[in-house]
Amino acid sequence: MGLGNSFGRIFRVTTFGESHGGGVGAVIDGCPPRLQLTNEDIQKELNRRRPGQSRLTTPRDEADEAEILSGVVDGVTMGTPIAILVRNRDQRSQDYEAMKVSYRPSHADATYDAKYGIRAVAGGGRSSARETIGRVAAGAIAKKILETYAGTEILAYVKRVKDIEAMDINPDLVSLDQVESSIVRCPDAAAAERMINLIDDIRRTGDSVGGVVECVARNVPAGLGSPVFDKLEADIAKALMSLPASKGFEIGSGFSGTQLAGSEHNDPFYVGDDGRTRTRENRSGGVQGGISNGENIICRVAFKPTSTIAREQHTVTRSGEEVTLRGRGRHDPCVLPRAVPMVEAMIALVLVDHLLQQIAQCTVLPLDVSMAPNPLGKNAPPGTVLHNLQREGRAW
Amino acid sequence: MGLGNSFGRIFRVTTFGESHGGGVGAVIDGCPPRLQLTNEDIQKELNRRRPGQSRLTTPRDEADEAEILSGVVDGVTMGTPIAILVRNRDQRSQDYEAMKVSYRPSHADATYDAKYGIRAVAGGGRSSARETIGRVAAGAIAKKILETYAGTEILAYVKRVKDIEAMDINPDLVSLDQVESSIVRCPDAAAAERMINLIDDIRRTGDSVGGVVECVARNVPAGLGSPVFDKLEADIAKALMSLPASKGFEIGSGFSGTQLAGSEHNDPFYVGDDGRTRTRENRSGGVQGGISNGENIICRVAFKPTSTIAREQHTVTRSGEEVTLRGRGRHDPCVLPRAVPMVEAMIALVLVDHLLQQIAQCTVLPLDVSMAPNPLGKNAPPGTVLHNLQREGRAW
Amino acid sequence: MGLGNSFGRIFRVTTFGESHGGGVGAVIDGCPPRLQLTNEDIQKELNRRRPGQSRLTTPRDEADEAEILSGVVDGVTMGTPIAILVRNRDQRSQDYEAMKVSYRPSHADATYDAKYGIRAVAGGGRSSARETIGRVAAGAIAKKILETYAGTEILAYVKRVKDIEAMDINPDLVSLDQVESSIVRCPDAAAAERMINLIDDIRRTGDSVGGVVECVARNVPAGLGSPVFDKLEADIAKALMSLPASKGFEIGSGFSGTQLAGSEHNDPFYVGDDGRTRTRENRSGGVQGGISNGENIICRVAFKPTSTIAREQHTVTRSGEEVTLRGRGRHDPCVLPRAVPMVEAMIALVLVDHLLQQIAQCTVLPLDVSMAPNPLGKNAPPGTVLHNLQREGRAW
Amino acid sequence: MGLGNSFGRIFRVTTFGESHGGGVGAVIDGCPPRLQLTNEDIQKELNRRRPGQSRLTTPRDEADEAEILSGVVDGVTMGTPIAILVRNRDQRSQDYEAMKVSYRPSHADATYDAKYGIRAVAGGGRSSARETIGRVAAGAIAKKILETYAGTEILAYVKRVKDIEAMDINPDLVSLDQVESSIVRCPDAAAAERMINLIDDIRRTGDSVGGVVECVARNVPAGLGSPVFDKLEADIAKALMSLPASKGFEIGSGFSGTQLAGSEHNDPFYVGDDGRTRTRENRSGGVQGGISNGENIICRVAFKPTSTIAREQHTVTRSGEEVTLRGRGRHDPCVLPRAVPMVEAMIALVLVDHLLQQIAQCTVLPLDVSMAPNPLGKNAPPGTVLHNLQREGRAW
Repeated sequence: MGLGNSFGRIFRVTTFGESHGGGVGAVIDGCPPRLQLTNEDIQKELNRRRPGQSRLTTPRDEADEAEILSGVVDGVTMGTPIAILVRNRDQRSQDYEAMKVSYRPSHADATYDAKYGIRAVAGGGRSSARETIGRVAAGAIAKKILETYAGTEILAYVKRVKDIEAMDINPDLVSLDQVESSIVRCPDAAAAERMINLIDDIRRTGDSVGGVVECVARNVPAGLGSPVFDKLEADIAKALMSLPASKGFEIGSGFSGTQLAGSEHNDPFYVGDDGRTRTRENRSGGVQGGISNGENIICRVAFKPTSTIAREQHTVTRSGEEVTLRGRGRHDPCVLPRAVPMVEAMIALVLVDHLLQQIAQCTVLPLDVSMAPNPLGKNAPPGTVLHNLQREGRAW
Repeated sequence: MGLGNSFGRIFRVTTFGESHGGGVGAVIDGCPPRLQLTNEDIQKELNRRRPGQSRLTTPRDEADEAEILSGVVDGVTMGTPIAILVRNRDQRSQDYEAMKVSYRPSHADATYDAKYGIRAVAGGGRSSARETIGRVAAGAIAKKILETYAGTEILAYVKRVKDIEAMDINPDLVSLDQVESSIVRCPDAAAAERMINLIDDIRRTGDSVGGVVECVARNVPAGLGSPVFDKLEADIAKALMSLPASKGFEIGSGFSGTQLAGSEHNDPFYVGDDGRTRTRENRSGGVQGGISNGENIICRVAFKPTSTIAREQHTVTRSGEEVTLRGRGRHDPCVLPRAVPMVEAMIALVLVDHLLQQIAQCTVLPLDVSMAPNPLGKNAPPGTVLHNLQREGRAW
Repeated sequence: MGLGNSFGRIFRVTTFGESHGGGVGAVIDGCPPRLQLTNEDIQKELNRRRPGQSRLTTPRDEADEAEILSGVVDGVTMGTPIAILVRNRDQRSQDYEAMKVSYRPSHADATYDAKYGIRAVAGGGRSSARETIGRVAAGAIAKKILETYAGTEILAYVKRVKDIEAMDINPDLVSLDQVESSIVRCPDAAAAERMINLIDDIRRTGDSVGGVVECVARNVPAGLGSPVFDKLEADIAKALMSLPASKGFEIGSGFSGTQLAGSEHNDPFYVGDDGRTRTRENRSGGVQGGISNGENIICRVAFKPTSTIAREQHTVTRSGEEVTLRGRGRHDPCVLPRAVPMVEAMIALVLVDHLLQQIAQCTVLPLDVSMAPNPLGKNAPPGTVLHNLQREGRAW
Repeated sequence: MGLGNSFGRIFRVTTFGESHGGGVGAVIDGCPPRLQLTNEDIQKELNRRRPGQSRLTTPRDEADEAEILSGVVDGVTMGTPIAILVRNRDQRSQDYEAMKVSYRPSHADATYDAKYGIRAVAGGGRSSARETIGRVAAGAIAKKILETYAGTEILAYVKRVKDIEAMDINPDLVSLDQVESSIVRCPDAAAAERMINLIDDIRRTGDSVGGVVECVARNVPAGLGSPVFDKLEADIAKALMSLPASKGFEIGSGFSGTQLAGSEHNDPFYVGDDGRTRTRENRSGGVQGGISNGENIICRVAFKPTSTIAREQHTVTRSGEEVTLRGRGRHDPCVLPRAVPMVEAMIALVLVDHLLQQIAQCTVLPLDVSMAPNPLGKNAPPGTVLHNLQREGRAW
């Protein structure tokens, strides 16, 4: 719980900007120095998020070109704040005249007025999905740190649109290319085609649909997460529930796991080929007791259908008159394809922050074999995965 | 994301203590001064949480009597830190000999070792449910502030145990008496009886079950929640996903709402009898755009079956030997009845913190009719519910 | 203690930017909504800070024009993050060739390398005084809130340059016009002239001087400051000691007060004409027990002589060779005239944050005459200055 | 700026407790696991702080025995919160009857009422020096980490009492034994004797005196401190200005350094015998640009004379009557001897937090010789002192 516009404790992102106005962006504080970072690292993720990338998304035409204002010199981070700015280009304030007085149902219009006593009407102001540009830009940096440090890979994809569910996806093996091979970002080709058709249909009727995005994080160091309030799954839940339109979250076995008995649900441990302690199943979703256990982190987030629709709806004006309103402006009939890079970004932000915190608290003092036999396998030197990585030369 | 043991920004709780040792408790900083507060306010909630309260819970026998060490003089809060201590009494370290070397599957044993390189074995140390004593004690104070300020009422109950779901509960009307009328804390009497039978059966087999707790918060002021990262539903999600054994969260329409089209899912606005702007449906679950809209907040959390069971399971020792382990110690066959007060406490902590933050940021400057016509109804003075409450003499 | 680039808890400023590069600026989160705010409010303070404003300052020529990127629509704050950007214009990277390898004595060059393992050489990078642009811009907003809410006025001025001390200044009465009437920002005209002559002399020799800035804050509400760690004087000390070149801080009687006995040093209370509890002396400097008492806050900060000088000095290169170095680049012979708006800004940031925090924690519950007779005078209604202000209609 | 009762970001202390009531103490979150820690480590520092240790201190008789409630098992830290409790024993509430209605001049009585609308009268409640027990206990742990990690040693001593200044102290060489050899904690024996006589005299008259404590931290790793707002000297300033009765702070050359020209004040660099980059003088006080440079950190803090004196003073009652008041209760005629361990504790808390933060942000990525030639000397491997320490086997 904070002021609302910052995320993270050590690797800390602050986003700014409204849909209309000077631009949107982010300031990232606490970024490790000496990271190789180019505009392209950031732009490639922004391009996956940008509007107008396919017929499934809003037609608002924004190139979303990022300018790195500070913190990076000659392609290397300085350890100082990285400020990133994306200018707003294709602004159409006139589209929002009706919404100036009438609240869009299930949108943020009424609650912003209730909270602040004022709001930026054009484009939904701060509640616009444009705000997520800052998140995705920061997430691109987080991803690069995680990959550099531990080979961590984070991949999200569309699992379900309305009632069309992709059944043929293996989270342990799915690749970025497979995800990006369809404009709906579902790596199950047959399901993807049906999803695209559904969204095309719903778009033509001026309506909208939602669904479920699934995400997997692979090669996550064990030991991340801070019990008790800042459990890893708690922070991931918050991260994803802070995305626009999200209504639900689950990790590992999630809601369906509550249908099992404990003896069916528990993940038995065994010793893997590499000597590491592994689980045979992964109903825990990569997290036990709020701390990563080295298995793949797997979670899902539910996105409701877009609230702005081109259909007449009953609503109320700011001065308390009952009226009807037909949404204008340019909006996605289904937020899921563009939500995929946002989900990845948010998980990257959670993981990098917990990684830095783990290094801060738990690596400063030497390990002692006698007090800490190692859960990672009988032949391993004592300590955590972090320490092992360092010994292997993957870090330090 | 933080150090793990604190929650909240302005009303901030820090819990401490392991299952075995000197005791458990909490320090609450930022509590408003001049709140009438007695030991009984805290004890009545701790009694709902304590072990041994019914045959459905762990037989560990703890009275869990709270001592207020500081911050309260003559039954009134001073605005200084409130420290609360509950001593551990019924400790049985010898029960944990086997677990000293063998990791309980799906428990926090292995991950604590991976993170810290050391752990308190007896009773699960910090991963014990005893840690939630501090949360419940702090939640009791939060509840009292919310009730005093705005008449807010927070009520959780067991909605489902394994596959037995209570269908006959109206969140808008359910009462504390109804919840407390069964030892399983399900206000649907018929379902409650079946749940109790199921838990009795599962307990006798040494196995465990999980389920779903639902929670409603009524009379929540509109305007709470801080977009964009600290949306109200994001903070509630984190709060509940930080509870032991939670695997999923949803608010309002949740996962099932993703099956609807936008035109079916949106909540139309209308003008209520009292002139306030209301929604006809509450699929939003009381939150829109990350900010409370004055409707009831309704959410659900999934709890997995207890991981410690009295059955033989495959696992691995700290030194990397594959072994079998049968859990000992004293544990709940189903955590849900005792999770009910924990869920209420966590939601109270979220709401009180956002309330104080809303007062801090959004009430310092005067409202101006011309810039902020009021979403709460045409006859209302301009401003937020907070301001209205104040004008009505319910606050200040 | 934080990541370094943010300040404040509820009204929170994050600055970004290096001396050379895309620009410098700030993001302000937690700003109250509905504040009238124009570019001019910010620009007038930046103009007092900008280089090249007089012959006493660095000749680097920067207009320092601020662009408000977000958070303000039609001259009113939205409660969303206010991002402010000032582009760097007059950049001369070539001046810094020698410093790329040689560390300037008493400058941040060597320590940035020690900390980050890398640094932005041109212009001192992040250690440049250009970073304070973001502080001054944010401070301008803080000042406006304080003035709107409570009529608070913050005024700093040069009290001493090297050994020339201004004796003829009354902190209770000094005005902004008096301060701004000389280019050295000393309101004692005779002393100002001598200071200017001294700086002119020292500038011609390529050397530098330091001195003391004094600051007074008038009409500060009583009750601000959070014991025990976040005492008001502690936060002011930190704020001012975070300014470049500061080496000392004192409040009220400061170091010289330690020469008195307690009976000489204590500030006796009396009842003022307006019924408020006042102190006859103000050796406390407006703060007692870490909390403002309604008297003027008076403090002083020592600034060392500018470390970059145009004289040959002994130093060491990055690769460990002993060399001599003559500073280049453009620098102030005396930082004090430009430090004046920085000091005011930092104190404004401290006061506004404590004001919002006080409102959050201590105004949510009603006052009760029986428990809290009022220190502000026998005829006053019970409560704090904050409450009184509200009753007088100066707030709410 | 925070809620007031916590300090530190990664190694975070929260203190609780009033002068009278259940007790005082602290919860430390973020402590590294696997630190050897005994009660004696904490008790030896508390004994230096406790009242009644000599005739120079308050006669309140408290053994101040600390109980470690959590976070430590078998003499080793678990990485979980360490809660420490010290019971209040020698309470005399009746001494405070007069102060219930009359405000002690220059004390926190009036401002607590102004802030909170209520206060704990007995013993000054939270404004009592008993609160510092929690700081000193936490500081003892911080000291042990610093010593274990880097051999850091922190030593404070009384430099001046009223107008008696100790001139014969070398901060680079002074030892704990020398400090503890006199009850006034001044290592200059001749000055110590005169200070003791002065305090004896002033105590007999019911009056009080203040003075200056100086502190040195040796073997501080270079690279600690986070520009720009969280400069090391800024955080030390805040830490020390948060101690009761402090009115001023300076580091290195401090206020007197402002009398020098830049060419006189700058610290020339040279290459030391060990190949490290050193400064010939230490006017910087061990910190440049907000970051430690590896030289000794030297600073001073001014403590005013104790405000509670046994002499009649003019004051005002809570209900606004002018009266006279003679202080009762038991108080120190001079706070400095007992302030010494408090100063050390606060500096330890600052250093350990910045150490952990430095490890978090700046050691996660590998160093690269080409981008970061090393300021520590031509023969050293590239990187910071932190990295060197690790290579030398002093850490990891």
